[in-house]
This record gives sequence, C-alpha cells and structure tokens, in this order.
Amino acid sequence: MLALSFGEGGPALGEVPDPRPGPGEAVVRVRLAGVCATDLEILKGYMGFRGVLGHEFVGVVEGPAGHPLRGRRVVGEINCGCGACALCRGGLERHCPRRTVLGILGRDGAFAERLALPDRNLHEVPGGVADEAAVFCEPLAACFEPLEQRPELARRRVLVLGDGRLGLLQAQVLREAGAEAAVLGRHPAKLALLDGLGIPVFTGPAEAARGGRWPAVVEATGTAGGFGLALSLVAPRGLLVLKSTVAGAAALNLAPAVIDEIEVLGSRCGPFAPALAALASGRIRTAPMVHARFPLARGIEALSRAGERGTLKVLLAP
Amino acid sequence: MLALSFGEGGPALGEVPDPRPGPGEAVVRVRLAGVCATDLEILKGYMGFRGVLGHEFVGVVEGPAGHPLRGRRVVGEINCGCGACALCRGGLERHCPRRTVLGILGRDGAFAERLALPDRNLHEVPGGVADEAAVFCEPLAACFEPLEQRPELARRRVLVLGDGRLGLLQAQVLREAGAEAAVLGRHPAKLALLDGLGIPVFTGPAEAARGGRWPAVVEATGTAGGFGLALSLVAPRGLLVLKSTVAGAAALNLAPAVIDEIEVLGSRCGPFAPALAALASGRIRTAPMVHARFPLARGIEALSRAGERGTLKVLLAP
Repeated sequence: MLALSFGEGGPALGEVPDPRPGPGEAVVRVRLAGVCATDLEILKGYMGFRGVLGHEFVGVVEGPAGHPLRGRRVVGEINCGCGACALCRGGLERHCPRRTVLGILGRDGAFAERLALPDRNLHEVPGGVADEAAVFCEPLAACFEPLEQRPELARRRVLVLGDGRLGLLQAQVLREAGAEAAVLGRHPAKLALLDGLGIPVFTGPAEAARGGRWPAVVEATGTAGGFGLALSLVAPRGLLVLKSTVAGAAALNLAPAVIDEIEVLGSRCGPFAPALAALASGRIRTAPMVHARFPLARGIEALSRAGERGTLKVLLAP
Repeated sequence: MLALSFGEGGPALGEVPDPRPGPGEAVVRVRLAGVCATDLEILKGYMGFRGVLGHEFVGVVEGPAGHPLRGRRVVGEINCGCGACALCRGGLERHCPRRTVLGILGRDGAFAERLALPDRNLHEVPGGVADEAAVFCEPLAACFEPLEQRPELARRRVLVLGDGRLGLLQAQVLREAGAEAAVLGRHPAKLALLDGLGIPVFTGPAEAARGGRWPAVVEATGTAGGFGLALSLVAPRGLLVLKSTVAGAAALNLAPAVIDEIEVLGSRCGPFAPALAALASGRIRTAPMVHARFPLARGIEALSRAGERGTLKVLLAP
C-alpha cells in the first residue's frame, strides 16, 4: 500500500507492506487523515520516530472478517497500552510505559491506505458527522483532557495562548464547558474563526494582561517561547496547562513558577467520547480550519504546506 | 549599625542607618541569622536585589516603645504585603504584587544588627527552642508549604532530590507528616544526618529508580539540572514540587512533562506555626547542619564559606 513514512532520509512516500493486525486489533482503511503539529515536530526529531507518520484519521473498519465494526466508520485513540501493567489496569493506558502510539511511537500511522489499532481504541462515528469533521476528533479529544484533569476549569477565566489548530479548538471546548475563555494569538485571520462565539481575542500580551493576570492559562502555541509568555500571564497560585510538545530543549527560567507558586500541568491525549459528542452537536467549528486537502500521493507537499505560516489544518486523502 | 549588603560592587560590609519601621512595624535586634542558597543566588543576580542581605533570623523585639512583643524572642515571615489588594485580603500576602521581601525584594534584610518587619509577620519563639534551632524556622516553614498546597503528599511515596539544607529539612518534614519519604543526594556525609530517621537515602538516580518512578518528587537540589532529573524520576500523572529557585534560564525540555501529564507545582515560603511547633517538638534535626558560625564582622567570609561544596548551614551572629 502507499504510505508517507519518516526515516533517516526524512519524509518519504512509497509502497510499504499492509499492516498486520495483532490479536484484538482491527485493520482500518483510512478515508481522511490530518496533519498535526506533532507530525511536523517528528520531522525535526521529536520522539525519534521512524515509520509511517500520522495519527489523526477517520476510516472504515475493513477486517478481520467478522469484526463487529466491519464496514463502520471509526476514529481511533492513538495510545495502545500493554493491558497488563498497573497503569493499564488503572485505566491509564495512555501512560503505559510499554505503549505504542499511532504514528508517534513504535506503531505505523495514518498517512497510509490502511492502519491497525486495538479494537478497544476504536469509536464509531455518528452518522451526522462528516469525515471532514470526524478527522478532528483526536485533537479535539486532547482539548477535553484539561477539563478531565481539572474540572474546575469550566468555572474559571481561562486564557488560551495560540491561534493554531489546537488553540482554536481548545478555546471552543472551554467555552462550551462554561469557562470564560479568551484567546491570545498573532493572526487576525485565524482568530476570525472564533467570530460570534463570545470568545474574546487578543493580539498582544499587553492587551491580554489589561484586566490583570489570568487564574488559568492554556499554553497551545506550539513554540518554545510559549511557556515563558504563559508564566508572565498567569496569576500567582494559578494554573498553567501545557499542551504544546516541542522537540528539544529551550532556555527556560522556572524561578517565576516557584515564586508565584504556579501549577504547571502537562496535558496530552484526551477522551474521545465527549469529543465525538461535541462534533455531533455541530457546535464546534472545524470546517473553516481546513486550509488544504491533498491526495496521499502528494503527501510530501502536504507536509510542507502544513508547515507554512498561517496554515491551519491540512488533510490527506489516501 | 553594621550590615552586610549587596550592591553594584558585590557584597560589602559596612555601617548603614538603623532601619526605620513603618506604621505597624517593629524593630528586631538580630541574635542569629542563617545564610540561605537564595542569598548566594542573589549574589549572582537573582531578583536584582540591592540592599542588606539575609532573611533567616531569630531576634528580640526592641521597639517601638510599648510594643506587646518588646523584649521577646521572635522569628519573622519574610513577605510583607500591601494589606489592601485582593491577594492580601484573601490571605495570600506572600503573593501580593506590591510586596517587599526581607533581604530579597525592596526591604533590607537580616545580616545586620537590626531589621524592621510588620508586627503581623512576627512569631514568638517558644522558650524551649534554642536560637540555633529557631534560626531554621524560615526554611523549615518553606518545607511545610508543599503539604499546605497538596495535603495528600502526607500519604504518598515522595522522593526528595538534594541533600542540601532544604532537602534534608524537607525529607524530615514529609516523614513527620506521614509520607514515605526518601532522599536522593550526592554527599554521604550530608545524608548521614538522616541516619536512624527511617528515611531511605540514595546516592544515584538509578538506585532511586530501582523500585519504579515516584508518584511525587520534590526538587530541592538548588541546581539548574535538578528539574530534568526530577522529570526522569516522577511517574506519569505524578507530582513534581519545585522548591529550588535558580537565577537565570537553563536549557530545559518540557515535552516529558506534557507526555507524562506531570503536575509541576511551584512552592515557595510556608507557614511558620507548624514549623515552630516542629522545632519545639525536638523531632527535626537541625544542629548537625550548622557547619560554621561567624560574627557579622566576618560576613564576607561567611558567604564564601556557605558557597563551598559540602557546606550545610552557616550562621551569622551580629
């Protein structure tokens, strides 16, 4: 099958063997996949990943024969735990030390005609949700994770840093949950996507700080500089949720976090059920984020487009 | 009066005017002061402080006339809030944006014959507590702060990183509170101070990680490298308490905190009441930490001694 892989020589398009599902796994024919900032970080060395890229997808279960979801449209959670360790048994498969992660760690990903995932990772997509929306389920689920970790966010003033894909979704999820969410971004064109949603937008830190520092800040800039900016905008004893994963080390000063007794909370993948429900409700705007759509055969071009300044979501269709 | 100050030319000993107490403030004659790692960071530029150094002390209230604590032995909380802002009114004077901090921010400190502090910052020292123990009250209070922030630490397995003054106190406080505390340090001579207290000690990260990563880690190394080490030792979804304040930025990689969804909690000054009670109980070992005692007139030498490898606490007597 055709696949877009990352290896020693960089990203490469070519024929690879079909995925071989393990016990309790299904094969999914990919209908649509999304390029994520994490894919772009992998190209810079993040996670040291080698293999088929991609972890955002919607597809149709193709096998094995007799699979209860065969022929059904699904999205899939990307972390595959061992199922046996204390973390897996405690419901934290996402943190299993022996896990594989679709297109990120030890498991071929979604920029291919087919992928394999454990049955328990699959979620059927409600009929009313188009492929173009369902493909946002994985990043949208990640935006529900801070609310799972700290439910009180739903009752807080929360500033989201970043007007990229994740920031725009995060602000909408927080707002829907009841939080007084606002966004600090740098691109009026991207911020315009939130018009009419009751989410204030700021285009500079001074403007965002005018009403005082924020009890909660979500760092979703995807840049190494986002952390320092977030620290400068969060109030003493406040909560700073880290959503960005950036490859490599950056020069950071943690002293303000100690002095202001900030809670810095790492937040990664999230629950699919509320994300699918939110997509089904039609209350999360995703369509305007799709800036380009490429056939898989033009996958290299798609990666390059996704990395261009100002681009929100790029989709790939096998 | 004689004082040890920090200015453009570095630390300097010399005559300065007596402190002039503001309304609601007392003048304290310092009996004994302690050199803290923060003082040494200030010498490197931390906080941009200029003035009389020092914030750990025990002394006797000298004035103003008629002060209810006059003649009494006291220790003092170091943060002085404005008393009027929302944080002060909410009991978070330690985080007042207009605060001064004794010997650290906008207020002359304790390496002097006298200092001034607001009355509300003073705590009388119980008769059974010697000056040499009472002078540890401020750093000991800081070790109670993580328990105030996250009371569940008292029921956790907690690894303390660092066998300096703070690490040794932190481990004892956690152990007394009921936690299963252990210490990772590099100096057998310092770690020996914990002998017989039921606090396991490790001298290398591999040894500390033998039983698995820790649900909670307190970073008290006082070094820029401590954060990365702490991240490598804390379990997914674990708590990493940051006690070290290090001047300037260091190369740090936050991705593991996101991936493992770590809670990184800044923790600074703490409550004096439980610290005084712990000192009065005699159950916290402080005496073996006193490695040197200098008269204030030899304060420069004292700072230099405090910065030497292997030194625990250096005291200054005006």
